[in-house]
Amino acid sequence: MNTQVLPNTLLDEVQSFLESRVYPLEQRLLRKGLGALREELEQLRAEVKARGWWCPPLPQHLGGMGLSLTEFAHLSERLGRTPLGHYLFNCQAPDIGNMELLLAHGTPEQQERFLQPLVRGEIRSCFAMTEPEHAGSNPVWLSTTARREGDYYILDGHKWFVTGAEDAAFAIVMAITNPEAERPHERASLLIVPTDTPGFLHVRRLPVMGELGEGWLSHSEVRFERCRVPLSYRLGPEGAGFALAQERLGPGRIHHAMRWIGICERALALMCRYALRRELAPGQPLADQQVVRHAIADSRAEIEAARHLILATAEKIEQAGTHAARVDISLLKFYVAGVLQRVLDRALQVHGALGMTDDTILAFWYRHERAARIYDGPDEVHRDLVARLELRRYLET
Amino acid sequence: MNTQVLPNTLLDEVQSFLESRVYPLEQRLLRKGLGALREELEQLRAEVKARGWWCPPLPQHLGGMGLSLTEFAHLSERLGRTPLGHYLFNCQAPDIGNMELLLAHGTPEQQERFLQPLVRGEIRSCFAMTEPEHAGSNPVWLSTTARREGDYYILDGHKWFVTGAEDAAFAIVMAITNPEAERPHERASLLIVPTDTPGFLHVRRLPVMGELGEGWLSHSEVRFERCRVPLSYRLGPEGAGFALAQERLGPGRIHHAMRWIGICERALALMCRYALRRELAPGQPLADQQVVRHAIADSRAEIEAARHLILATAEKIEQAGTHAARVDISLLKFYVAGVLQRVLDRALQVHGALGMTDDTILAFWYRHERAARIYDGPDEVHRDLVARLELRRYLET
Amino acid sequence: MNTQVLPNTLLDEVQSFLESRVYPLEQRLLRKGLGALREELEQLRAEVKARGWWCPPLPQHLGGMGLSLTEFAHLSERLGRTPLGHYLFNCQAPDIGNMELLLAHGTPEQQERFLQPLVRGEIRSCFAMTEPEHAGSNPVWLSTTARREGDYYILDGHKWFVTGAEDAAFAIVMAITNPEAERPHERASLLIVPTDTPGFLHVRRLPVMGELGEGWLSHSEVRFERCRVPLSYRLGPEGAGFALAQERLGPGRIHHAMRWIGICERALALMCRYALRRELAPGQPLADQQVVRHAIADSRAEIEAARHLILATAEKIEQAGTHAARVDISLLKFYVAGVLQRVLDRALQVHGALGMTDDTILAFWYRHERAARIYDGPDEVHRDLVARLELRRYLET
Amino acid sequence: MNTQVLPNTLLDEVQSFLESRVYPLEQRLLRKGLGALREELEQLRAEVKARGWWCPPLPQHLGGMGLSLTEFAHLSERLGRTPLGHYLFNCQAPDIGNMELLLAHGTPEQQERFLQPLVRGEIRSCFAMTEPEHAGSNPVWLSTTARREGDYYILDGHKWFVTGAEDAAFAIVMAITNPEAERPHERASLLIVPTDTPGFLHVRRLPVMGELGEGWLSHSEVRFERCRVPLSYRLGPEGAGFALAQERLGPGRIHHAMRWIGICERALALMCRYALRRELAPGQPLADQQVVRHAIADSRAEIEAARHLILATAEKIEQAGTHAARVDISLLKFYVAGVLQRVLDRALQVHGALGMTDDTILAFWYRHERAARIYDGPDEVHRDLVARLELRRYLET
Repeated sequence: MNTQVLPNTLLDEVQSFLESRVYPLEQRLLRKGLGALREELEQLRAEVKARGWWCPPLPQHLGGMGLSLTEFAHLSERLGRTPLGHYLFNCQAPDIGNMELLLAHGTPEQQERFLQPLVRGEIRSCFAMTEPEHAGSNPVWLSTTARREGDYYILDGHKWFVTGAEDAAFAIVMAITNPEAERPHERASLLIVPTDTPGFLHVRRLPVMGELGEGWLSHSEVRFERCRVPLSYRLGPEGAGFALAQERLGPGRIHHAMRWIGICERALALMCRYALRRELAPGQPLADQQVVRHAIADSRAEIEAARHLILATAEKIEQAGTHAARVDISLLKFYVAGVLQRVLDRALQVHGALGMTDDTILAFWYRHERAARIYDGPDEVHRDLVARLELRRYLET
Repeated sequence: MNTQVLPNTLLDEVQSFLESRVYPLEQRLLRKGLGALREELEQLRAEVKARGWWCPPLPQHLGGMGLSLTEFAHLSERLGRTPLGHYLFNCQAPDIGNMELLLAHGTPEQQERFLQPLVRGEIRSCFAMTEPEHAGSNPVWLSTTARREGDYYILDGHKWFVTGAEDAAFAIVMAITNPEAERPHERASLLIVPTDTPGFLHVRRLPVMGELGEGWLSHSEVRFERCRVPLSYRLGPEGAGFALAQERLGPGRIHHAMRWIGICERALALMCRYALRRELAPGQPLADQQVVRHAIADSRAEIEAARHLILATAEKIEQAGTHAARVDISLLKFYVAGVLQRVLDRALQVHGALGMTDDTILAFWYRHERAARIYDGPDEVHRDLVARLELRRYLET
Repeated sequence: MNTQVLPNTLLDEVQSFLESRVYPLEQRLLRKGLGALREELEQLRAEVKARGWWCPPLPQHLGGMGLSLTEFAHLSERLGRTPLGHYLFNCQAPDIGNMELLLAHGTPEQQERFLQPLVRGEIRSCFAMTEPEHAGSNPVWLSTTARREGDYYILDGHKWFVTGAEDAAFAIVMAITNPEAERPHERASLLIVPTDTPGFLHVRRLPVMGELGEGWLSHSEVRFERCRVPLSYRLGPEGAGFALAQERLGPGRIHHAMRWIGICERALALMCRYALRRELAPGQPLADQQVVRHAIADSRAEIEAARHLILATAEKIEQAGTHAARVDISLLKFYVAGVLQRVLDRALQVHGALGMTDDTILAFWYRHERAARIYDGPDEVHRDLVARLELRRYLET
Repeated sequence: MNTQVLPNTLLDEVQSFLESRVYPLEQRLLRKGLGALREELEQLRAEVKARGWWCPPLPQHLGGMGLSLTEFAHLSERLGRTPLGHYLFNCQAPDIGNMELLLAHGTPEQQERFLQPLVRGEIRSCFAMTEPEHAGSNPVWLSTTARREGDYYILDGHKWFVTGAEDAAFAIVMAITNPEAERPHERASLLIVPTDTPGFLHVRRLPVMGELGEGWLSHSEVRFERCRVPLSYRLGPEGAGFALAQERLGPGRIHHAMRWIGICERALALMCRYALRRELAPGQPLADQQVVRHAIADSRAEIEAARHLILATAEKIEQAGTHAARVDISLLKFYVAGVLQRVLDRALQVHGALGMTDDTILAFWYRHERAARIYDGPDEVHRDLVARLELRRYLET
């Protein structure tokens, strides 16, 4: 097993950095938006880089920390405790997933032009897969097409929930290149599309839970109209779109799930501190209420169960590969998303009216992390997959 | 029983009016805010008044429809299907509650100066009770004081979650006037405080779930600094503050709960329509998914159970009074708030990524109606009350 | 509306009779079985008859009380508070359903031979529908056949969960008589089969939750092997089996559901009394635990919501008929069964180790009423039906 | 880490032995009771011993397998798949806990007289702690006393839920020996009391969920009336009763929890097999129902989360000791008990009417394992403990 777990001292240093330098920025993020923080965030990123904490899961020769999946899982939990954490360490979605894809499957030219500036933090990218007209839960049903014309693909289509499209330098786009392929999973390819390509139309930032967001904290609707993409910008072989996207998602779900655990830990800490501080009457803190204590206990129990499930799956991926762990990955996706929603709900309830305001970070997560049960496959899809594979064991015997 | 239920034709006319004239405004509300709709809303209010639908629960001689509690409950359900409904009929919280208070307890002078323009819809008002420093779940623990000085009270204190304070003409304020009274419930009085009184400080609109809101769709933090309020602006006797607030809440909870049923009905309708329309693959609508169908069935079951519970309580209030129904009122408060949260959660989940956006009204309710389990007494307080009274039956025997 | 509700004095008299005379028998029922109580039960039945409480939903000219559906609903709740209640009033399942069927559809000969001794309480009967080889949730899929031979049907088949088959004088049996009928719902008929008919084989009492039970408190497996049944023993027309069974179930589900409310009320009363009496430390009763109080409050809330749902449905059946209320009936079936399970679970938990024993009646209900979510259509079937009809509204428009 | 995990081949051999030799006995156990199996069980125990599988967690020099906590956890999961498993391997509760206590704290004389025949499987024992008059959730509140008179303790008291008291050779009894000790936790001691001691009165086997049970599958009420116990039969020092009981419970909870996982696995396997076999209509298996599949997926997810939580706690106990892991142990106790109840409930529901019968093993577990949320501390006690320790972290900082 090559999962040398990170020393706790490093994890604690990171957390202490986040608590002292980053948490204090959250109120401004909530009130003024990301734009108001731009300068400070760039300084903090420079500092993170200087401390050697940059791009944790990327190899050291590229400028990363070279962490194993399990090591990054532990770090991701700490980063997740603030919405700014992953960005400051240059490992925010979807960029980190794009980096991993480009690293594994990019040509030298693609790596030089797209991967390296991404790793250096000079540009951002996005990933365009979901289409408004088709259910994201059936990923093989796509209308976006890329037809070959000479040395180019002509890309036409409509995508949404393209996270971070605003200000991104390029998108990785899933499009049908081989409509005649027999297996639906072999019809699409991934194309790298610079956002300044003519015909790359940014329609709008989507209003999500009342907010348009900004930059990497936004989700866009995008159209491609006769957008010309050089053949050399195809990532991986033709027809490999789904296989690559799937490969990208496996470790990605570990990162996400540990980020969610980080959110849960922060929510639980806020809940405990508030329960001790807030009084229902003089000398009678909320923590004296048994239902508040049980909300804390249930949250702790669910968090621990979820964390061990994720870590065990990370080990399994490292030892036996993503395919061997695909049930485990689906299973933790919906299980941990459920824990996240319940813990946030309890933390908000314990805070009472304050929980509804943006005077704490809880309401931000309450509304935006509701998406955890939807993106990367809604609960229902993962439950179906887990059940199908569970049942298969009994069919074979 | 005097609960002549409204003819269904009237209810259907109202709903048809809302569907055709009001629902289409919601997208603009979500994208541009209330300000962008001001003119249209005033025209619609004029039309509602002209149709004789104005101020439904107020007596006809004052310009209302003179509906009984049960009749208004049925109407409130229809109005609740859009966030704009109650305002258009001039029966939005907190104004309608203030009107009922002023009607029952106001002096002729108070009624002329404050009630009549409110009923006519020329001004708005607010209700200032909750304090940031004290748990709302313990309403008798207040710091806001009103000390007599000659013909005035000198009001000092700090309030928040004062709904609709922005642009309101006056506030009804709960303040300690009799700190020495033996029973904590007899220490406070209600004062009518014009918002232009010197020392009435509007601190900020609270950022609630990422939004400041506007006008009657906002919640403010307010301070009173040596604010002089004429004795004649006291509403009801000294020390009667809680008794009056309680009286105001009884029917108010029926209105609210039926408004929630209205939200549930709209959410369920959206869920059904989307399930029939949205396809997972060609010819395979979401409605073919059994878990979607069961989400629909569970929602229908919970809505019906909740509706009958509310209507039965409304009848009991009409027949035996608010006090006799106080367990029932507490019970439905937390029960229906729970139903509301679950139905909204299911409707959002069925909509997938679309549910996260403001392209439907669901996400607005999902985030803002989370407060239903908190305001007017959090779930925990109502559960405690219901249990205490349930247990008391066995103590007495 | 003809639902003259029973005077509370009558309901209270009945409950007082049950509390003083019947509850004390429960411990013997649990320890020794029904057989040990036979004599006392017959005396109590005689007393009930003498008090004029016999066969409540049957017409007075037949010897019943002539109660309306709603009236019997209220009474059924009281009777449900003990497992012996309905039997003592001669309105236990399945006999009361059989009486209603024979009353509505029996020939004069059938009524004289089968209905009258049943009403007088001299015999018992059973209803044979479910087959072990076929899912009860698909009632039209049956293997039991009744082929005509001259003046007889030759009945062959296999049934189980035939409640009260032991000692029953006759069974009403659902069997395929018209296999060639186009609509599956028109293939079966109901036959009255005396249990002493040659070929009526009582295979075994089923071990249910560890108990075989006895008499009307047991469930049997039964076989029919070339069992000759006179044509004149067919109940209603050929092919009408399902229509009649459905007709029988509508009001039956109201009775059952109110019986469940009775169980819930008893469980809640036990929970409250125990919470007040049992101490965790000297002077510290269980009722001081907030989670116990909230278990009580949640139970009260769910019981009230369920009760109002049932009563509203009973009124709808009386006013508009069983067909008009079929969604409501399905909806309350699964909703109230869920409430029952949760209330029993909470009551048991509050009783701790005692709750696991048969020193209270709770464990009996906990194990046997688990079937409430299964018999008369499992939850899943009712949810499917409710959703299908809910969705249909949007298809039609 | 010294937790050499057992080779899967051994685990598979054990499971295959259980499936082929032991599962087939379950139907007889359910129908005839333990007595009917006595001879076969003794033969199987001899065979288990011959295969070297005896007393897995005991050291090899005593005749055990010498398994570590983690190793036995894995084995306990396999054994838990049938109610007969642990007994056949001579590691059933409460005997295995008593063996561990005697091994760690018994005098040589006690070990010779009590431990050795227990390890050899010649006798059985029981553990008497809970008292009917006092809540088991407050273990320090006891009425059973042992007063010194010369070389004897005079034991007086009343206990229940003494598992396996019937036919046991001795009991280990918790009794107050030092009522004057300042700390309540230092007032009681453990005494070894042969069941043939005069004054050891076996009152009754408790009727638990309708069954008295037999032998080690029964729970008794017991009285001690001036029962003379030699001082030399005290286990450990005076006043150490709770400390020893606590020590016994730590690893015990791991064994129990993994036994529960075994039950869950068996229930899930039964659910899957039945879903594939049972048809709702020809060619339409239950497994085609999405809600059935989701019941399977949720069960698999909860089982995996629970299993990893238990195994991580076992490792922590091995590495840092029981005290360091006391929150983890409390946390998994209530968490896994909840999983167990939900999985059994789902499995039963999927089986429909069959699930209510004893034709499968599910109904046995459904009713008896309801106790999992009660014994060894009810959920509420463990939640309180977990919350108190979680909150303490924030008090200290």
